[in-house]
Amino acid sequence: MQLTSEQADKLIGAARTKAKAIGIAVSVAILDSAGHMKAFSRMDGAWLGSSDVALRKARTSVLFEAETHSIWDIRKPDAQAHGLEHTNGGLVTFAGGIPLRAVNGDLLGSDRRLGGQVEQDFAVASAGVASLPA
Amino acid sequence: MQLTSEQADKLIGAARTKAKAIGIAVSVAILDSAGHMKAFSRMDGAWLGSSDVALRKARTSVLFEAETHSIWDIRKPDAQAHGLEHTNGGLVTFAGGIPLRAVNGDLLGSDRRLGGQVEQDFAVASAGVASLPA
Amino acid sequence: MQLTSEQADKLIGAARTKAKAIGIAVSVAILDSAGHMKAFSRMDGAWLGSSDVALRKARTSVLFEAETHSIWDIRKPDAQAHGLEHTNGGLVTFAGGIPLRAVNGDLLGSDRRLGGQVEQDFAVASAGVASLPA
Amino acid sequence: MQLTSEQADKLIGAARTKAKAIGIAVSVAILDSAGHMKAFSRMDGAWLGSSDVALRKARTSVLFEAETHSIWDIRKPDAQAHGLEHTNGGLVTFAGGIPLRAVNGDLLGSDRRLGGQVEQDFAVASAGVASLPA
Repeated sequence: MQLTSEQADKLIGAARTKAKAIGIAVSVAILDSAGHMKAFSRMDGAWLGSSDVALRKARTSVLFEAETHSIWDIRKPDAQAHGLEHTNGGLVTFAGGIPLRAVNGDLLGSDRRLGGQVEQDFAVASAGVASLPA
Repeated sequence: MQLTSEQADKLIGAARTKAKAIGIAVSVAILDSAGHMKAFSRMDGAWLGSSDVALRKARTSVLFEAETHSIWDIRKPDAQAHGLEHTNGGLVTFAGGIPLRAVNGDLLGSDRRLGGQVEQDFAVASAGVASLPA
Repeated sequence: MQLTSEQADKLIGAARTKAKAIGIAVSVAILDSAGHMKAFSRMDGAWLGSSDVALRKARTSVLFEAETHSIWDIRKPDAQAHGLEHTNGGLVTFAGGIPLRAVNGDLLGSDRRLGGQVEQDFAVASAGVASLPA
Repeated sequence: MQLTSEQADKLIGAARTKAKAIGIAVSVAILDSAGHMKAFSRMDGAWLGSSDVALRKARTSVLFEAETHSIWDIRKPDAQAHGLEHTNGGLVTFAGGIPLRAVNGDLLGSDRRLGGQVEQDFAVASAGVASLPA
């Protein structure tokens, strides 16, 4: 089962709605389970720098099938995989990248935003994910 | 005047509608007038390789404020700017990248697809551009 | 409203004057609001390494619409966006990159120097920014 | 003897004056004899894509101590160094990059523009070079 354009559009819509509701402008990147970009939107007023952060977070999330902030624990200075963030062309390991899973648990892809405080980004990303039909 | 998310969504919608009508699946990249990605969609069934081509075509079109195929004449082997395609990180100089212009002629950004025969791509891109309010 | 060559020349002139006054040699990079280089000058005697630092600082400042040193607080090891400096091809987050704003508050671009102590660099960059007509 | 900021400013000024006189807008890149950027200016209205072309031409000219168009003869498909343009991160081998030489013949750096027809670019670059004190 592969992520469809229809699902990606829905994810972007839900994320933008949540972002507007909390008063921030974000970049949203939706990748498929192979890490290839499926859909993207940079909202009016989002920082230019948010595009690359959004893409890297979504990619990090796909590459290790994990929420980005959970990778911090294994990559931080004294942890077992310290420096992991320098692999794969550069990872981002703070909150906001979330794997997308189908009902059967298969990885569908990833969803990522940047634009507000990190907690806000996580809320926006979660709203996107929640829009996927269960 | 800057390209808005609403305009970008509309461009993507018009391009996908045209692509479906002629039976092809394409990647659509919408850049702003500075060459930064504003919106992107890879339709279900489009080649993975179409994403990069779409992005490069849109970028080529912004960087030289021209339809991509018109650059071929100056960059081909014996032309005055032979090899121009190796600059700016790699240009694409066949049809499909079209500058987006506002009513006053200002460059708004660029619009690009790949997925079918080049003539089909041009038709799809043109349908997108035609959706911009005049 | 776009940053003009005339404004960029003025910014560079003011920065070089200030640098000479405090006895340092710097690289000055002026970018437009999309992060594209508009003007650049490496003063005689400036470190070769100062060019890249100047360009990255100006770029960082544009990408996140902030003075570079203010980004340190969110990207330092324990902060919410730790590691942000590894995105966007590499950011610089110490003092010296300053957003240029027009009278109406629109982002015009960024201005950055390196060549002396960081406090000196900030003084030089500020002198440049102060030369913009209010 | 090294290229000075004063010389670089003069070269840029002469090039811009010539460009205005023939009605084109160009990017001007002045490199020192080691290929490091000394000064740069993108004139209002110049294509965004002209910056990279200007920088690569100036760099090509320094790396092989030759006018860029003279490299075409040795790098073209059947010539002895065919494909040379793919070395050094990408060369540009059409007209417009000119080595700067001091009275004693030492290489001072390079000077390059793009923005008009290639012949116009060469005229603009030549005007810049002619401004160097003999």
